[in-house]
Amino acid sequence: MAVREADVHITLVGSEEQIQPALRKEGISHLVNFVPTSQVITMNDSPIEAIRKKKDSSIVVAFELLKKNEVDAVVSPGNSGAVMAAAIKFLGRLKDISRPGIASVFPTLKKPVVVMDVGANVDCRPKHLVQFGIMASAFSRIMFGIETPRVGLLSIGEEGGKGNALVKSAHFLFQDSGLNYIGNVEGRDTFVGDVDVIVCDGFVGNVCLKLSEGLAEAILSMLREEISKTLKARIGYFFARQAFSNFKKRVDYAEYGGAPLLGFNGTGVICHGRSNQVAIKNALLVADELARNKVNDHILAMLETSRPLQDFDENPAPSGAI
Amino acid sequence: MAVREADVHITLVGSEEQIQPALRKEGISHLVNFVPTSQVITMNDSPIEAIRKKKDSSIVVAFELLKKNEVDAVVSPGNSGAVMAAAIKFLGRLKDISRPGIASVFPTLKKPVVVMDVGANVDCRPKHLVQFGIMASAFSRIMFGIETPRVGLLSIGEEGGKGNALVKSAHFLFQDSGLNYIGNVEGRDTFVGDVDVIVCDGFVGNVCLKLSEGLAEAILSMLREEISKTLKARIGYFFARQAFSNFKKRVDYAEYGGAPLLGFNGTGVICHGRSNQVAIKNALLVADELARNKVNDHILAMLETSRPLQDFDENPAPSGAI
Repeated sequence: MAVREADVHITLVGSEEQIQPALRKEGISHLVNFVPTSQVITMNDSPIEAIRKKKDSSIVVAFELLKKNEVDAVVSPGNSGAVMAAAIKFLGRLKDISRPGIASVFPTLKKPVVVMDVGANVDCRPKHLVQFGIMASAFSRIMFGIETPRVGLLSIGEEGGKGNALVKSAHFLFQDSGLNYIGNVEGRDTFVGDVDVIVCDGFVGNVCLKLSEGLAEAILSMLREEISKTLKARIGYFFARQAFSNFKKRVDYAEYGGAPLLGFNGTGVICHGRSNQVAIKNALLVADELARNKVNDHILAMLETSRPLQDFDENPAPSGAI
Repeated sequence: MAVREADVHITLVGSEEQIQPALRKEGISHLVNFVPTSQVITMNDSPIEAIRKKKDSSIVVAFELLKKNEVDAVVSPGNSGAVMAAAIKFLGRLKDISRPGIASVFPTLKKPVVVMDVGANVDCRPKHLVQFGIMASAFSRIMFGIETPRVGLLSIGEEGGKGNALVKSAHFLFQDSGLNYIGNVEGRDTFVGDVDVIVCDGFVGNVCLKLSEGLAEAILSMLREEISKTLKARIGYFFARQAFSNFKKRVDYAEYGGAPLLGFNGTGVICHGRSNQVAIKNALLVADELARNKVNDHILAMLETSRPLQDFDENPAPSGAI
């Protein structure tokens, strides 16, 4: 799907027995490169240990290819901790980024919003949040063409004084960050679409991501249940089915193409372990877009103009973070 | 609505000019008591200062009535911080509860789930989370008749080793808590309905609550938008409108009747500032249920059987919480 839809070249890395028959069946062996690997990093493997011990796994081999410039980006639906660890080990952190992170695109009533971090960094310091804001802004600029994205800090009240200790400290850093910072935003605001980037720590972001996916699915199930209860409602569904299908597409996370891993010297996109073909195709197109547009150059340029951030490196950890 | 639906006696506390004409208009002046107040605590007032300075506000007067046993429970859609502060000031914390909190009922595919804390305590220690688990279990027992509710700890992976520093420490406390603790649950699990109580700190809980409300509204808007686009879909809607109305009722938070304030020597229910009449009526019925069934006796009994919790009082703050 990706090869047919855009000018991308794909290298598949993985199990020969699983991939080759599928390629032959689809008749596309000539369209993609293939690199066989013999080991598998499972979802339960400890990331650091796994990338050290399983050198012939698809995650390790793919990032080695990226390091050798044989590919321009890596897309993986595998163990996201291991993807993160491999990215940092083989390519290194981007200059002045202390913690690479994972961004995710949420559907809203208007244009999609970028949320970062959604799981890479569970215990954060204020400056990490500002760095997430910078990286997510660069992503928003490339993917959605927004020159200076509006950045909000996820909190539990709109006033700057509201939030937990981490958010309260981060609020003041953001005000001097050079970003188009619009202040705190609440969970409610996420889906309204008046903000382009929402920043939070990886624990909160991951909970929000999974909660949203779970709620969207639950709501669709409830709707299906109610509609199947009476003949009249089923007739109604028959007439409105195109509307339902458009609606489902808007709510479906698979349409938004994976979560970019930002902050290392390369381009990577992480997908859900249970991604369908549309999700993988869209992730490949996002990776292509990020690599072509040199997302890291945008991040470095934005870091350059937010130089004051460096001053906060020497600050002690926020005292209230217990 | 509440008076007609159940055997409850209502005392309204507030502005004479606003309430009396409404009571006369509805012809129900004889059905409710009325206590006039002259001051208003706004949503922006600092809670502690407001309850000290505005002694003739509805929040302060209502909790004084509760203290004097002239009412059995307080329901308020006002400044929730001020409600919390007044409850603690006038009635005191429940024995062995360090932090009273706010529980909230989320709709799921099966029976509703109780989430606590949803905003009262933004920076928590592990033992606070266990106390939330105990209080929310008592609430679940009274409201949903579940004798030993299944309690889950909201985290970003199902394994006990996953989560931020707070959650990792709390996981071990929960294992010895005497609660029916089933381990970590993820955001996705919230709406499946296989767990009765979900525990989290007040920052995460408040973000989840508002995110869920926002997403449910956004999804309904998207569905309306898609359906209004074509005549065919509008015809479909006409046939299926009863199904839609049932569906909306299931997703509507107003149906779930406010958020109980648990952990003080009294009964209180906090409502959304923008509650409609159904939400207020349901909150009154929840308050009635909690007062009749003596929710605090259940909490105290559960604390009694989870005695080991006391040992953790002397523990230092979790070291990784920065």
